[in-house]
Amino acid sequence: MTAIQFDSFGLAPFIKKEEYEELKPQLAFAQELLFEKKGAGSAYTDWVDWASTFDPTEEEKIQRRAQKVQGQSKVLVVIGIGGSYLGGKMALDFLKSPWYNDLASDSETKVYFAGNQLSAMALRQLLRVIGDQDFSVNVISKSGQTTEAALAFRFFKEALIKRYGKEKASERIIATTDAKQGTLRAETTAAGYDNLVVPNGIGGRFSVLTAVGLLPLAVAGVDIHALLAGAAKAEQYYASKELSQNPALLYAASRRILYDKGYTTEILANWEPSLQYFGEWWKQLMGESEGKNQKGIYPSSANYSTDLHSFGQYIQEGRRNLFETVVRINQVAEDLAVPKMAENGDGLAYLEGKTLDEVNQTAADGVVLAHIDGGVPNMAVRVAKQDEASLGELIYFFEMAVAISGYLFAINPFNQPGVEAYKTAMFALLGKPGYESQSKAYRDRLQK
Amino acid sequence: MTAIQFDSFGLAPFIKKEEYEELKPQLAFAQELLFEKKGAGSAYTDWVDWASTFDPTEEEKIQRRAQKVQGQSKVLVVIGIGGSYLGGKMALDFLKSPWYNDLASDSETKVYFAGNQLSAMALRQLLRVIGDQDFSVNVISKSGQTTEAALAFRFFKEALIKRYGKEKASERIIATTDAKQGTLRAETTAAGYDNLVVPNGIGGRFSVLTAVGLLPLAVAGVDIHALLAGAAKAEQYYASKELSQNPALLYAASRRILYDKGYTTEILANWEPSLQYFGEWWKQLMGESEGKNQKGIYPSSANYSTDLHSFGQYIQEGRRNLFETVVRINQVAEDLAVPKMAENGDGLAYLEGKTLDEVNQTAADGVVLAHIDGGVPNMAVRVAKQDEASLGELIYFFEMAVAISGYLFAINPFNQPGVEAYKTAMFALLGKPGYESQSKAYRDRLQK
Repeated sequence: MTAIQFDSFGLAPFIKKEEYEELKPQLAFAQELLFEKKGAGSAYTDWVDWASTFDPTEEEKIQRRAQKVQGQSKVLVVIGIGGSYLGGKMALDFLKSPWYNDLASDSETKVYFAGNQLSAMALRQLLRVIGDQDFSVNVISKSGQTTEAALAFRFFKEALIKRYGKEKASERIIATTDAKQGTLRAETTAAGYDNLVVPNGIGGRFSVLTAVGLLPLAVAGVDIHALLAGAAKAEQYYASKELSQNPALLYAASRRILYDKGYTTEILANWEPSLQYFGEWWKQLMGESEGKNQKGIYPSSANYSTDLHSFGQYIQEGRRNLFETVVRINQVAEDLAVPKMAENGDGLAYLEGKTLDEVNQTAADGVVLAHIDGGVPNMAVRVAKQDEASLGELIYFFEMAVAISGYLFAINPFNQPGVEAYKTAMFALLGKPGYESQSKAYRDRLQK
Repeated sequence: MTAIQFDSFGLAPFIKKEEYEELKPQLAFAQELLFEKKGAGSAYTDWVDWASTFDPTEEEKIQRRAQKVQGQSKVLVVIGIGGSYLGGKMALDFLKSPWYNDLASDSETKVYFAGNQLSAMALRQLLRVIGDQDFSVNVISKSGQTTEAALAFRFFKEALIKRYGKEKASERIIATTDAKQGTLRAETTAAGYDNLVVPNGIGGRFSVLTAVGLLPLAVAGVDIHALLAGAAKAEQYYASKELSQNPALLYAASRRILYDKGYTTEILANWEPSLQYFGEWWKQLMGESEGKNQKGIYPSSANYSTDLHSFGQYIQEGRRNLFETVVRINQVAEDLAVPKMAENGDGLAYLEGKTLDEVNQTAADGVVLAHIDGGVPNMAVRVAKQDEASLGELIYFFEMAVAISGYLFAINPFNQPGVEAYKTAMFALLGKPGYESQSKAYRDRLQK
């Protein structure tokens, strides 16, 4: 049984059945490009059968590394940016809690993320939060030269050496990097760090089920075997060529049809704070895959019901170029009965006998109708529960959908050429070796 | 001296000087509507001179309440949604830290926010995080009947009574509510809660400088007098009718000009994690004020450099309907020198001698150029530093800008009719008294 149901109820007023029929040839072609590795960027499609072919010795190695960290440290600092960060953070929140570090028992190892921005304030504060707790570092960078991660690694390496001395510091570092190339691999070999591999055939935003995401998750006690198993099962479900049998295909098709009608911004919404970073992970997956050649769906996210009292007004009544995809949890792990009160001053007596989750689910139902009435096409991805198997499938669902979607848009869903633009400007302005010739031109433009 | 500079460098290729000239009559008219209270929603414009006319006895009362909480509790739970939550959270992060609770010393009172969604998981986890720490509750609701806040108040009232007994529980509750009307006012009077007032002439999204935002901030040790003083000064700066002298006017004008050219999504970006919730607060302010009658600028936010490695690809190369407003901090409170290393394996030796903030600021400069080249108009709001006076001015800057902007769009910037739509559907589906007649129709549509 799949852990995911695709609910197209809120699309009915906006998409006719025939439209799906008419798109079928393009969908089949997009699948062919992907599965036969004939499409653009096909060198980066190893995620397609990654989970089902996952090397058990790799899994064992990750577990061994995780156990070592758990044994030596109260805190793991995970250094990485973009895909080297968002997958792990998303899955940790989803499977444990956004409060995971606050709730960690004495036997659990906390997980903090660093090197995902350049703020000195944030770094100093994180160092203070860690304080005198024993810590280990997992530095994640394929090349070793991503500025944000490499800089943070310098700071934390310095902190480790100061605390433990040079030799012992090296025993607290795990490098997740390219198998052979790059500066971090070279340093790892020279210093003898424990290490794991960022595979070649999987881009950062698809890497959560590789060592990149799996090590931090294993340290936090996530059952990574079940997570992979969920994704492995999903490989079968979402390879189906039958539109009615394949929600990933249906989702990709729906998005494409809506885009062509002028619905060019997609809001990924959720009803659980533990899914806030699912939205962040999804924004990278979709935005970095599709946003090129001056096209693609703009990825935005919302957290309900919070944001219904924020830009919910805009969603309900603003420009009608929005559509909405809601990730809903069918069965929450814990619920609470609405407290009974002798007085009914707050007018909530009608909710007594219900649980808080029933109210939450009903609010979600209400929003579907309100948004249909407001002219916002919406669909739901219903997830059985917040467990590893469901998340594995959910990850694969969106990865498959964006790959198909990318080919429907006739772009390469697996590159990210635009990410270089700011780096080039930054390197030129910072005077990085190799960028000298561009430096003056950039400085002149800024009149610096 | 103003604490804010408006930097229009990144607009030059997209807006001609004459365009501002041509908009001047409309801008003057929008100002007239606002200042002479002739515009739509003018009953909700008391924020315009709120800070400069702030009642010192009110300030004293807030301080007294804050000191009582500090004396009795390690934790303050702030219950509220939308404007009753976002302003306080934004200012706490901006002035203290997103890690404020983690960094709080023994003499400081932690501040947690609740009642801003309907998740049972989140509520249970928050209760566990609070654990056996002494806590007080600040419930913020003008009517007392906002579902999210009223429900959370039931849970926390129950927890207070269980812990402290009914009488003592009442001494740990501060209600911030309407001065006279509503169910929370009635309960407050009956139970004798400490209380503060949500004024009539200021809507939720403009309420951060009222008791709504000020009490939680005072509890966290923020200098609320300086915050108000910053806003009071700003009243003078941003009332100027001279476009070149009034950045709020310039910002409103730029947005309007860009919108008419098809730039219909605005991204509010920042370069400090402590400004993430500034983006959330801003999304409510802009989206709820402007998103009506099928128009308005869609409010989105981004956190840099993180999101440059996420949907940064889209911003650089996706659909060209985006523009960007970056809140930049001129002088950070704390910086860090890039560590010197004997080896240069990471290729960062060229950054030695620089500080992390210099790298961050240079990255921000680089992004301006990259985004201009990519066709993304951008502007910066440069803030002197992360202190109370600067934030007071910054809040007022955006409030003034959105008011002018709303009148330029010929909408009422101070109502939020669309927020009712989901509530009506939810109440009907939940069987709330008074909604019986609509209940069947909504259920039938969902086939429930």
